[in-house]
Amino acid sequence: MSTKATQPGGNLGPEFTQKVIDSMGPNTPPRLREIMDSFIRHIHAFANEVQLTSDEWLLGVEMINWAGQMSNEKRNESQLMCDVIGLETLVDDITYTAATKSVNGLTASAILGPFYRHDHPVRKNGTTISFNTPKDAKPAFMYGRVTDAVTGKPLANTSIDVWQASTNGLYEQQDPEQEDLNLRGRFITDAEGRYSYYCLRPTPYPIPEDGPAGKMLRMMDRHFYRPAHIHLFVKSEGYKPLVTQIFDKDCTYLGNDTVFAVKDELAVEFKPRTGDPEASWEVEYNVTLASSSS
Amino acid sequence: MSTKATQPGGNLGPEFTQKVIDSMGPNTPPRLREIMDSFIRHIHAFANEVQLTSDEWLLGVEMINWAGQMSNEKRNESQLMCDVIGLETLVDDITYTAATKSVNGLTASAILGPFYRHDHPVRKNGTTISFNTPKDAKPAFMYGRVTDAVTGKPLANTSIDVWQASTNGLYEQQDPEQEDLNLRGRFITDAEGRYSYYCLRPTPYPIPEDGPAGKMLRMMDRHFYRPAHIHLFVKSEGYKPLVTQIFDKDCTYLGNDTVFAVKDELAVEFKPRTGDPEASWEVEYNVTLASSSS
Repeated sequence: MSTKATQPGGNLGPEFTQKVIDSMGPNTPPRLREIMDSFIRHIHAFANEVQLTSDEWLLGVEMINWAGQMSNEKRNESQLMCDVIGLETLVDDITYTAATKSVNGLTASAILGPFYRHDHPVRKNGTTISFNTPKDAKPAFMYGRVTDAVTGKPLANTSIDVWQASTNGLYEQQDPEQEDLNLRGRFITDAEGRYSYYCLRPTPYPIPEDGPAGKMLRMMDRHFYRPAHIHLFVKSEGYKPLVTQIFDKDCTYLGNDTVFAVKDELAVEFKPRTGDPEASWEVEYNVTLASSSS
Repeated sequence: MSTKATQPGGNLGPEFTQKVIDSMGPNTPPRLREIMDSFIRHIHAFANEVQLTSDEWLLGVEMINWAGQMSNEKRNESQLMCDVIGLETLVDDITYTAATKSVNGLTASAILGPFYRHDHPVRKNGTTISFNTPKDAKPAFMYGRVTDAVTGKPLANTSIDVWQASTNGLYEQQDPEQEDLNLRGRFITDAEGRYSYYCLRPTPYPIPEDGPAGKMLRMMDRHFYRPAHIHLFVKSEGYKPLVTQIFDKDCTYLGNDTVFAVKDELAVEFKPRTGDPEASWEVEYNVTLASSSS
């Protein structure tokens, strides 16, 4: 079983794949037809290429059922399975590049990930998102400006959602010890496009290991870690929304993120901060957005 | 959204796909590496080819989670989703062809499907599997012989599991009105390799429409029907097991089975049966098996 199949197996050739594709009726929406045509071709080509057996296929079916059964409003295991094979990063890049193709100098996007919540409370600039600060945490001050990528105009009234895991590697919804909405918040830029808040200097953490995504990683002899990062979701009226992450450029796993979300331009430097009893580290991060009409 | 993307989107080229593949560690089993290498390449190629957006991908993730959440010991929705795009038929054909490649004249295989049970009771040849016969049913007598595909030797003590849906289109585990193990049984061939039993002349039925497989079919403007069939699972010591289905050659949907399981040589003729108060139809079906050493 360890070598490539040396003979084409199966009696069902390309005409079988075509028959499956041709079963789509005349009222299939064109975009769906385009997607399913390609998907069916690639899945069949994959099965033929590796001479996939029924038992191997059934193992995959069981993994998928398991992923669905583990998923709920607090976790999304199918998403995580896609993440560990780079699929979310790929579609995120396709989507954001297509949406912003005529704009240079734009902040790069990164995946949303499975831990975003839609109900972040608005917090005041200069306040903290950390309400259960662990003893081993390094409080940090993050600040910056949001501007138009083309004109450089500051973008007031821009909302910036931020969320991060605590030092134990858990987001608040994964951790009964953290209060609701800990390490999350929404900040609104001022007239100069400025935002600021206190957070924790982020730390690397493993993605959940107890489901099929974890099983896949173990089978593939891979580690479970994401490099230290903070999530950002930036929305400004008249501009294309930006989902991204910033990464601590000094952290381990920067070069081998288990979900492949790191882009060079998203790695930032946390610098020592002096004279502030609230934080010993700081990071400046400026964001540029593309106009909706671009 | 209805036309092919005219420009390559995304900044992540083939080197991104290679990076994901190269993340597999040295202790990845060789067969798994072969499978994941091909799977990752094809999934990434698919996403690039259709310029899959994050929203479209998330719809797929939701379908997969839904499939898992619907699945239990009585139904397997992820399997059904694979079935409607021909994947189970494809891997079944690959597997059986690879297992029996040196043998001619062998009975063709067909998919197991999601309704098999491992606990079929052994029933006596010549008895029935129908214990809740509906008024609209057409009782039938099925019989035949099991032989060695090469030598023609009759295979005694061969077990033949059979299962079929009732005329309402439901297998017993889907239908509270049918008793446990109705329309299922295991028969053991006699010294001449013969088996026989009473069943229902099968009728076409729709696959379950209430889950993501049904949603996929509706989106693809396809029908839900399987042609009339009876499932067989044939096991004989020293021989390769055979999973197959026989199809009523006179039924509708023979040419467009929603799970693509029909093969020409599996279409059989039900003939009128006279002089038997138990059945007005009969079908002869002989099975040939390949020796384990072939």
